[in-house]
Amino acid sequence: MSVIDQIAAAIGADRILTGKDAAPYGKDWTGAYTSTPLAVLRPISTAEVAAIIRIAHATCTPVVPCSGRTGLTGATMADGALMLSVERLNQITQINTTGRTATVGAGVILSNLHDAAAAHGLIFPLTLGARGSAMIGGLLSTNAGGSNVVRYGSTRGLCLGLEVVMADGRVMNLMSALHKDNSGLDLRNLMIGAEGTLGIITAAVLKLLPKPQAYATAMVALPSLADALALLHRLQDETGGGVEAFEYMPRSYMAKHRQMFPDMPPPFAQDHDVNIMIEVAATTARDAQPGPDGQRPVVTLLEDVLGQMLEDGTLLDAVIAQNETQRREIWKRREDAGDVAFFGGHFVNTDIALPLDKIATFEAAVTPRLRAIDPDVEEVMVAHLGDGNIHHTSYVSRNDPAAMAALLEAVEDVVQDLGGSFSAEHGIGLSKLATMKRRKDPVALAAMRAVKAALDPHDILNPGKVIPPA
Amino acid sequence: MSVIDQIAAAIGADRILTGKDAAPYGKDWTGAYTSTPLAVLRPISTAEVAAIIRIAHATCTPVVPCSGRTGLTGATMADGALMLSVERLNQITQINTTGRTATVGAGVILSNLHDAAAAHGLIFPLTLGARGSAMIGGLLSTNAGGSNVVRYGSTRGLCLGLEVVMADGRVMNLMSALHKDNSGLDLRNLMIGAEGTLGIITAAVLKLLPKPQAYATAMVALPSLADALALLHRLQDETGGGVEAFEYMPRSYMAKHRQMFPDMPPPFAQDHDVNIMIEVAATTARDAQPGPDGQRPVVTLLEDVLGQMLEDGTLLDAVIAQNETQRREIWKRREDAGDVAFFGGHFVNTDIALPLDKIATFEAAVTPRLRAIDPDVEEVMVAHLGDGNIHHTSYVSRNDPAAMAALLEAVEDVVQDLGGSFSAEHGIGLSKLATMKRRKDPVALAAMRAVKAALDPHDILNPGKVIPPA
Repeated sequence: MSVIDQIAAAIGADRILTGKDAAPYGKDWTGAYTSTPLAVLRPISTAEVAAIIRIAHATCTPVVPCSGRTGLTGATMADGALMLSVERLNQITQINTTGRTATVGAGVILSNLHDAAAAHGLIFPLTLGARGSAMIGGLLSTNAGGSNVVRYGSTRGLCLGLEVVMADGRVMNLMSALHKDNSGLDLRNLMIGAEGTLGIITAAVLKLLPKPQAYATAMVALPSLADALALLHRLQDETGGGVEAFEYMPRSYMAKHRQMFPDMPPPFAQDHDVNIMIEVAATTARDAQPGPDGQRPVVTLLEDVLGQMLEDGTLLDAVIAQNETQRREIWKRREDAGDVAFFGGHFVNTDIALPLDKIATFEAAVTPRLRAIDPDVEEVMVAHLGDGNIHHTSYVSRNDPAAMAALLEAVEDVVQDLGGSFSAEHGIGLSKLATMKRRKDPVALAAMRAVKAALDPHDILNPGKVIPPA
Repeated sequence: MSVIDQIAAAIGADRILTGKDAAPYGKDWTGAYTSTPLAVLRPISTAEVAAIIRIAHATCTPVVPCSGRTGLTGATMADGALMLSVERLNQITQINTTGRTATVGAGVILSNLHDAAAAHGLIFPLTLGARGSAMIGGLLSTNAGGSNVVRYGSTRGLCLGLEVVMADGRVMNLMSALHKDNSGLDLRNLMIGAEGTLGIITAAVLKLLPKPQAYATAMVALPSLADALALLHRLQDETGGGVEAFEYMPRSYMAKHRQMFPDMPPPFAQDHDVNIMIEVAATTARDAQPGPDGQRPVVTLLEDVLGQMLEDGTLLDAVIAQNETQRREIWKRREDAGDVAFFGGHFVNTDIALPLDKIATFEAAVTPRLRAIDPDVEEVMVAHLGDGNIHHTSYVSRNDPAAMAALLEAVEDVVQDLGGSFSAEHGIGLSKLATMKRRKDPVALAAMRAVKAALDPHDILNPGKVIPPA
């Protein structure tokens, strides 16, 4: 009996898509990665996932897990593999308002969880452009970041409990709602960010937080990144860590954005090198409720800080959102980054992390190196500055694979010299496999291979991804 | 050549203690665990640690790492093993005030790091009673908690980078100062909390935070734990997460404390069931600077909340510290917990975690079960209530191992029924090895064994600890 027939016998043929029905799953958001899975499996329970994996384990059949397929690294490419979509594990089992937790299936769409938490005056703070498609399983498997990490951490920091189907089909139950649990090795964090190579996440217990009562949102222009970091620290100190977003859009990004969205007016009369989108949240009533002047204290606080910096010359210009429409407009410019970075033409894109105080050094060092390879290279960057995370794109005039590889190497060289990482939040998948091999500490790589072989001895779980062969 | 001679040849005989010189290392803080190591090794560099481990690996000699030996689980028992003390890796290499990080050796004493950060107006927020002896290596290896976890998280959440000597003596360099790094499996968190079973932590990059500018500290008495949780949420919401400690001392703890420290006056005229120590930090100048009435706004805020609760009957009594001396006194009562829990006589002590909303259920359920085993049992508890973490001690009149084992089982049964953990912050070591075998998810246990075998194939690193044999 074929593997697919065995699976059909175990969980029902109606769970299986093949041929034309399966084809859409072979495409991802980027369009850069297409594949032809053996079949697409859509189990409706953890028990069904386990049944599939037991068969895959016994038959040594590769399984590629997927959820919203909004990743950027080709991690769900599934040529010749079973593609296991967790999309039907889409139940929000519980919103616990006393313990402030949500118990969810891996197929829950992020924006649906946002809505469910909001109904109780709470938030699940992780957010990113793809929130209408991205699902909890993929967000956990990639330890997704996004725009609020500076305040709330990445997905890893928001997860208390996990359920995982292991490579032999057994179910590991770590579904606790505990804030402390030192009972042995940290398998939860090992599974988070493993991109489906060690197990298939089927459910999770996630933290919920009180919903901010108001926001102060601004676009500002500053003379330098050092001034921007000083502003970040000052705002953090004056608000007790209330900065929710601190997003850097250099001149290059602003220009490219204007080119693509000519109907959107620029924020400032002049163009500047260092433009920052700031959002500060008021979680307390005393910061959120309008005072006698009709203005919310959190907005007054931001205005005061910016006003003082304008006076002493460490701020060039600023626009503070006066209402939700203006706030949305400020956010839109930042959230268009996916379109700006993948506009088309020929480009090399990467997602890197640096120590906070090395961003300016990176900028100064990387441009001459790129121009030495291609004098016409056009850089576009956008950064979660509060996390030291830069999305860097080099646009080139022609599709020259050798030159493009050299551009990527040049960016990575500078990052490595400055103690950074070649992958900040997007993960490795297929796209950074070669970089992992070149750049990652070799002892860490050996440890990853050993852990992978120990937990997935038949190499069936997303094989060939994340961990390069020795 | 003996193993010790090989090590002497590699790093020098002056790094090795034997006989009488080594004896003090065979004792720990609890006094409950004594052992006789083969020798005590005190390397002065990561390279020397690596040299030792290469020899141990080649000769299959067990190695037990230790630092301050303030753990409570017997994790540093070293009969017939080499004891590797990291105490001389005690350099604070860098305090980076721009990036707000500290680069430290594993032998740095916690209070020394506190002092070094304070010199720059920053804090390393982890703190616990043993801070004058506990070292970074042990704190990381046990993922130590303490009294500020409700605000700052456990040690894991405060670590950005690690250097680890692996079981074959190779050095894994994960010493980055990055807030995001999705470059493969999460080996950093795997090493943290592994209690030296997977590698020997030799250095770390830790987060520093701005020093709070003022505190509001109080002892309060409430009618119920439900009222206490409501107070916690309210304070968190009104201060934007400013609660630094929320420590529960039930009637039993207050009574035992008074018995042991009769010179210290009780906080309230009457005794109460639910006593909570609260500390709220003001990180912002506007909350810290005294107003026209001479009082700090953070204190006024706490007073207002408590005043309203007194009026509506959800608070019974409260004492707010008026100066640093009174604050220290409030803290002292809580920090005496080590003495109160290990007072002497015969007792069974455990460290458990529960979902926040299950603490009262636990209290109600556990007492009758314990009394059914021993009608004279005397319970003493103290809890990091904000983390759902209880330290529970059952004092008994006589040393009856069977009854004491039954008492422990009864506590663990209730914890397990309520979705809790049998180890919140102290770890497993030797003392909870049997509990791990009985209670931990069997699939998780199997995964831990597989990871251990993969990363330490000769089983030389702290063998027989944490992970029970199959």
